[in-house]
Amino acid sequence: MITLAFDLYGTLLDTSSISTVLSLHLPASSVSLSPSITALWRQLQLEYTFRLTSSSRYLPFPEVTRLSLLDALARHGCSLTPESQATVMAAYSQLTPFPDVSAMLARFEELKQQGGEEVRRLVFSNGAPEQLERTIRGTEEIRDWHYVSVHETGKYKPAGEVYGWLCEQVGRGKEDVVLVSGNPFDVVGAEMAGVRACWVDRAGKGWTDGLGRPTWIISSLEDLGELVGRM
Amino acid sequence: MITLAFDLYGTLLDTSSISTVLSLHLPASSVSLSPSITALWRQLQLEYTFRLTSSSRYLPFPEVTRLSLLDALARHGCSLTPESQATVMAAYSQLTPFPDVSAMLARFEELKQQGGEEVRRLVFSNGAPEQLERTIRGTEEIRDWHYVSVHETGKYKPAGEVYGWLCEQVGRGKEDVVLVSGNPFDVVGAEMAGVRACWVDRAGKGWTDGLGRPTWIISSLEDLGELVGRM
Repeated sequence: MITLAFDLYGTLLDTSSISTVLSLHLPASSVSLSPSITALWRQLQLEYTFRLTSSSRYLPFPEVTRLSLLDALARHGCSLTPESQATVMAAYSQLTPFPDVSAMLARFEELKQQGGEEVRRLVFSNGAPEQLERTIRGTEEIRDWHYVSVHETGKYKPAGEVYGWLCEQVGRGKEDVVLVSGNPFDVVGAEMAGVRACWVDRAGKGWTDGLGRPTWIISSLEDLGELVGRM
Repeated sequence: MITLAFDLYGTLLDTSSISTVLSLHLPASSVSLSPSITALWRQLQLEYTFRLTSSSRYLPFPEVTRLSLLDALARHGCSLTPESQATVMAAYSQLTPFPDVSAMLARFEELKQQGGEEVRRLVFSNGAPEQLERTIRGTEEIRDWHYVSVHETGKYKPAGEVYGWLCEQVGRGKEDVVLVSGNPFDVVGAEMAGVRACWVDRAGKGWTDGLGRPTWIISSLEDLGELVGRM
């Protein structure tokens, strides 16, 4: 039986959805910058994780997220009061799921009713354990899912060790685990570590990353239902 | 005596200067995209180096540069003929030095005439050895400089090992080497590895990086002349 390990941020949950919360806390003159700050925040959050692992350092993901928010704000000439900062950070535990998450779950339920095998699903994320606990339990669609955090390895994706840790935690060989991710760096990292990956290309822009390739590409999580039978 | 180890791309040489060459090879309808493609190219080039080191992989810098160019082009819906690609890549060995490089050299010469100590300078770069050889020998201002490439370590900045390698290659202890860089990730990497760093803030936007701080900040390489006496 295949185990599907879903990336969380950018795959099940839409990190751009935090822009609305952020805009409520920016000074009136800067409200229009909110989407740009949110996009840079996400880019820096990932860059920080890559840089930390590159230099054999580790900071917990909530701290990485806070530091990258401050950097993104500063680069836009903005800042937040400590109260606003706390509210925006708290909103990071309440990100909106992408619409195809529900559609995928419905499709899997349908296939199960038709006698198909139940598919094992879990979250595999850079998020710290308490953060994942809060976020997952607070998200209706994935409330009862298990999760594996990279936290215990002291490294972030795409370090090979974290994909090995994932397989160890789910008690399966690499050939029985498939990573599902909307993030090309995660897909490439998994494939390099020997774990096959399925890339979610919601924007339909096609694969452009030069460091590797996914085994499968889907345009919506809903397509996973049929794909799993062929994995 | 302090040894100044200068980062090359983004510190001595202006990577954005390649935009002009690129624009000559894009189809007429895409010429206006050249600055945006060049900026994304640079961002992806760095992201690729971080990701490679994070996952314990290594590809030579010219290959990283080529793959990130193709990615940046594809994300803009563009491509280049093989001939154009080769020309643009060759232009990467002919980047324009920032104007303050000459000013810095003149200032150091002046200080030497006034009886000051001669300052040891070299290039310390992610670039591959042959690439550095070609680029440095082809750049009037730094033609006779020595260089240290990270290539032999199989890792990219900001891995701690590369700053150790630098000190080993110059035959000095960490306390006698100062990194001069316009790239915050490089500055943070050096400082974490125990090598003090001077950040060149040409844009005057101030330090925003959340993962560390430079020991010194200057707004122009010319300011190094006076600073060296206090290092």
